[in-house]
Amino acid sequence: MNDIDTESIKGIANQLRIHSIASTTAAGSGHPTSCCSAADVVAALFFGHMRFNPKDPHYYNNDRFILSKGHAAPLLYAAWAETGLFPVEDLLKLRQLGSDHEGHPTPRLSFADVATGSLGQGLGVGVGMALCARLDSLSYRTYVLLGDGECAEGSVWEAASLAGYYKLNNLIAIVDVNRLGQSQETAFGHNLDVYKKRFESFGWRTEEIDGHDVEEILEVLAAVGLGEQPLVILAKTYKGAGISFIQDKEGWHGKALSKDEAARAIAELQPSAKSGIGTSIPAPEADPVPNNTPPASYPPLGYKLGETVATREAFGTGLVRLGEADPRIVALDGDTKNSTYSDKFLKKFPNRFTECFIAEQNMVGVATGFSTRGKVPFASTFATFFTRAFDQIRVAGISTANIKLVGSHVGVSIGEDGPSQMGLEDIAMMRAVAGSVVLYPSDAVCTEKLMEQMVTHRGVCFLRTSRPKTPVIYNNDEAFPIGGAKVLRQSDQDKLTVVAAGITLYEALKAADTLKEKGISITVIDAYSVKPLGADVIRAAAQKTNNQVLTVEDHYPEGGLGDAVAGELSSAGIKVHKLAVFELPRSGKPEELVARYGLDAASITSKVWSLVG
Amino acid sequence: MNDIDTESIKGIANQLRIHSIASTTAAGSGHPTSCCSAADVVAALFFGHMRFNPKDPHYYNNDRFILSKGHAAPLLYAAWAETGLFPVEDLLKLRQLGSDHEGHPTPRLSFADVATGSLGQGLGVGVGMALCARLDSLSYRTYVLLGDGECAEGSVWEAASLAGYYKLNNLIAIVDVNRLGQSQETAFGHNLDVYKKRFESFGWRTEEIDGHDVEEILEVLAAVGLGEQPLVILAKTYKGAGISFIQDKEGWHGKALSKDEAARAIAELQPSAKSGIGTSIPAPEADPVPNNTPPASYPPLGYKLGETVATREAFGTGLVRLGEADPRIVALDGDTKNSTYSDKFLKKFPNRFTECFIAEQNMVGVATGFSTRGKVPFASTFATFFTRAFDQIRVAGISTANIKLVGSHVGVSIGEDGPSQMGLEDIAMMRAVAGSVVLYPSDAVCTEKLMEQMVTHRGVCFLRTSRPKTPVIYNNDEAFPIGGAKVLRQSDQDKLTVVAAGITLYEALKAADTLKEKGISITVIDAYSVKPLGADVIRAAAQKTNNQVLTVEDHYPEGGLGDAVAGELSSAGIKVHKLAVFELPRSGKPEELVARYGLDAASITSKVWSLVG
Repeated sequence: MNDIDTESIKGIANQLRIHSIASTTAAGSGHPTSCCSAADVVAALFFGHMRFNPKDPHYYNNDRFILSKGHAAPLLYAAWAETGLFPVEDLLKLRQLGSDHEGHPTPRLSFADVATGSLGQGLGVGVGMALCARLDSLSYRTYVLLGDGECAEGSVWEAASLAGYYKLNNLIAIVDVNRLGQSQETAFGHNLDVYKKRFESFGWRTEEIDGHDVEEILEVLAAVGLGEQPLVILAKTYKGAGISFIQDKEGWHGKALSKDEAARAIAELQPSAKSGIGTSIPAPEADPVPNNTPPASYPPLGYKLGETVATREAFGTGLVRLGEADPRIVALDGDTKNSTYSDKFLKKFPNRFTECFIAEQNMVGVATGFSTRGKVPFASTFATFFTRAFDQIRVAGISTANIKLVGSHVGVSIGEDGPSQMGLEDIAMMRAVAGSVVLYPSDAVCTEKLMEQMVTHRGVCFLRTSRPKTPVIYNNDEAFPIGGAKVLRQSDQDKLTVVAAGITLYEALKAADTLKEKGISITVIDAYSVKPLGADVIRAAAQKTNNQVLTVEDHYPEGGLGDAVAGELSSAGIKVHKLAVFELPRSGKPEELVARYGLDAASITSKVWSLVG
Repeated sequence: MNDIDTESIKGIANQLRIHSIASTTAAGSGHPTSCCSAADVVAALFFGHMRFNPKDPHYYNNDRFILSKGHAAPLLYAAWAETGLFPVEDLLKLRQLGSDHEGHPTPRLSFADVATGSLGQGLGVGVGMALCARLDSLSYRTYVLLGDGECAEGSVWEAASLAGYYKLNNLIAIVDVNRLGQSQETAFGHNLDVYKKRFESFGWRTEEIDGHDVEEILEVLAAVGLGEQPLVILAKTYKGAGISFIQDKEGWHGKALSKDEAARAIAELQPSAKSGIGTSIPAPEADPVPNNTPPASYPPLGYKLGETVATREAFGTGLVRLGEADPRIVALDGDTKNSTYSDKFLKKFPNRFTECFIAEQNMVGVATGFSTRGKVPFASTFATFFTRAFDQIRVAGISTANIKLVGSHVGVSIGEDGPSQMGLEDIAMMRAVAGSVVLYPSDAVCTEKLMEQMVTHRGVCFLRTSRPKTPVIYNNDEAFPIGGAKVLRQSDQDKLTVVAAGITLYEALKAADTLKEKGISITVIDAYSVKPLGADVIRAAAQKTNNQVLTVEDHYPEGGLGDAVAGELSSAGIKVHKLAVFELPRSGKPEELVARYGLDAASITSKVWSLVG
């Protein structure tokens, strides 16, 4: 702890307010009042409490700070400017195209581990960081600043529950209870007691403070890490605090001040404002650096051609195989580990496995937190339950987070459980994530080899696994580059190219046999890489079959494999016909459903016949 | 209340257990142990407490029952069979293709208001039903049976918070605390005190009971409706209760008993089992029937050609216009009402507006609840924040719920707030919902007319509105049928068909003018109906322009308008080229971003030139 001069911190807080007002007024938009309410807390954290290397925001043992209320971005930018990381003049480029000082923080900035701005997501990321500190025996702490309005998001309570369960006393949440939401007062206004009881019931130690009293802020911060519980500091604040004519008034959310208003506000704040530059910030401890070194290679596979293994089970096997060689790999699941087979990893590496219980949003947030600390997290559940976390996944895309999501139980081929359990929209969802990779293996070898690619590739990757057992069709040394595709059947006489993946690949191969007996030969392609698509392979094959393609997928037709192929290749004159699940499916036996919804070999045969017979 | 014979109810509970065991064993899959833990509670509710007409599950004033733990479906089916609604023999068709007794309940069954099975969703729907009872002055109560495992879902706490806030004392949650999740013990096992403190802190009255003690269950149920708070009954139960060799044992989640095991279990239960058929069930009260009659027509529009109105604002205006004529219309928002313009409806009809605060999952659940009671709910927020509720929307699709979602602030044209606030994946998401309708108006007239279509069309509908003001280009009496498209420019000399919607339509029209000066004429189509797509109109136009189409959308390329057009028309030999947001965008001025990401008139002009110039 440095020698804290509370008067200086109060002055810095006002300087941060001035920066926030000036930069948003220069931009003509933004949320200055949301910055002002939190300015004292942020000043106290950055200039009187947190231990970090201000010249190296990525330093492995820095205390972490997540601005969950991302719309207070100007305050965050101001704090880092005042640490000396970059010139304060840069703050006036806020929200300009070409500046990384965007409307909400993204990791384009060295000091933002994750993008924030979609509310309620910071605490889950913080849980991941705090769990990672424990795993790596590092003494950094994780601080998450939330707004009161975002505490209405269930994701906050998923995170709070897990933090309480795992007794993360290295995690500190600060709620900026400024009473006012965007369009009206929040549900609980300045009733801090509501938040206090909630966090307590979720296993947290709580402190209620005046969020504009720097002494009080520092006093409760001095007691972080005590006991076995995570700590939440409930800070009673005023929106627009420090600006006499705006403070605590409705109608000021997300509004920049006019130039005149800004001048008046700054004139009020200026007399006590003080620069933070030159403040001595305590250094992090010199804990041993964790080993996050990738291995030179992974152990070989040992599958036998023809043996039947569900791709979901190969995922579990692969997770152990990769985990043995690669210390960065950690796993998470949402109480489905005996279905996704991630329990294999738990048995082998209990310390590197996080049971997240049935809370998929938080699971993705926790995975994102691990990824920011150098880990390669694999988070698994039923594919369709990732829809629960679409916003978290979307923001992971904006964060370019290095997370690996594995969704099992896809399509009608899961059978009797019915549509609520069937992944039928997961390809559409995952393709629509910025920078994502979407992989869909058909056999065990492909599954495990794609997992190696997922580890190597930095970014959000999704692996779609299936419930039924399928035969191994690839040799153990086959390569499956991201963006590739495999031509499994091809001849000069082919009339049409069938593009399939997962269970439909086997149906396509059966159909090819049947059609051959009828005198029609077809090309069959395994589109294991849906995004990026193996477009060159498919295009080349299609051009040899009169530009005729038939896609077959255990997924709805919208946004899936068929749309991917058509969307990329129709401009080249490729004609794409689709077989997919064109209606809301029912319960039934897997093979019955695959037939009923037109994905089986007979349906493919019939469709090909209608097109080129 | 009927003359309760607790011994009979205990017997019925065992009969429900026997049905659940027999039907899952016949199916070879399912969750009998999750049925057994809740059997006493369900027997007490159905045969000793709830007021409903067992011959008419849809009766307007029946008490509502939602099985949030949808995997206990066999128990629900058994309860209704024992009311006499259908022959008990039908229970043995569980999970068979052709039976509506699916693995998890869906509204294909008259007694299931909504699909359940994706956990944590029932309580939000219940909040909507309870709010609707209050709005309609109906005395029915809403009962929601939850599992303990699903209480890890944040959506449960979003719903709990809103129920507490609105003091819904006509809402009763029962948590079946059977201790065991799918893959291990839940986070809190049989520690009911954790749940008690949580619900209390969220504004609920709580009761802890032995969930296998019928007298105790009935006693706490007799006190429903007391006070001003919603009531949660925390029922300590055992998974597999009543089966001596399975009760409270791990490893029995989601497993049917073998025939031998089932015979043993049934032999244990049989002696005390009793049929519920013939039980006198109390009738609902005869409250006045609410007026949910659609009007013959809606008032006319009064826009002037050329005036500029943001489609998001036209939505607010339209909501009031429709709401004045149609008593079924209610509105919900998630603290964005001053941005989405739903606040116009709040001002006019405060009783018919529900502020859901920043909790989008719950907002969709509440909307679904309203829709089951004959209302037409419009729920609005920023389009991208609906990603938060994708699972709820997905399940609304399975439920064929009649909900209307309105997402504003789409695409890079929102400007400075940056990617976390931009709807860039909402079309992909909403297209992938079973049976959904996706609409994307460009001007105020189209917006309001499409809203009329949304009200008339039964099912999940999504309206995509934009932030910038756009000129009115349609006459007030123009018709916009779902599945249509408008040809705005067309001549015999056209070289290419541009398909656009929203703000890109205006860019396309500008590009058409520029290109005409260069001697190239193009067809321009307004694809206001993205799903179902106006495919016939687009195909016909494309065939007149050498099968060349260019789509332009303020959305990522995956799963959006371009994929929709390519996916539907490439089989007819239409070549679809795409302009879309091909990279993670930044903050900047709207017009700068529209240009930077290649969606403005200059980009369209240049692309058309490269294709046909």
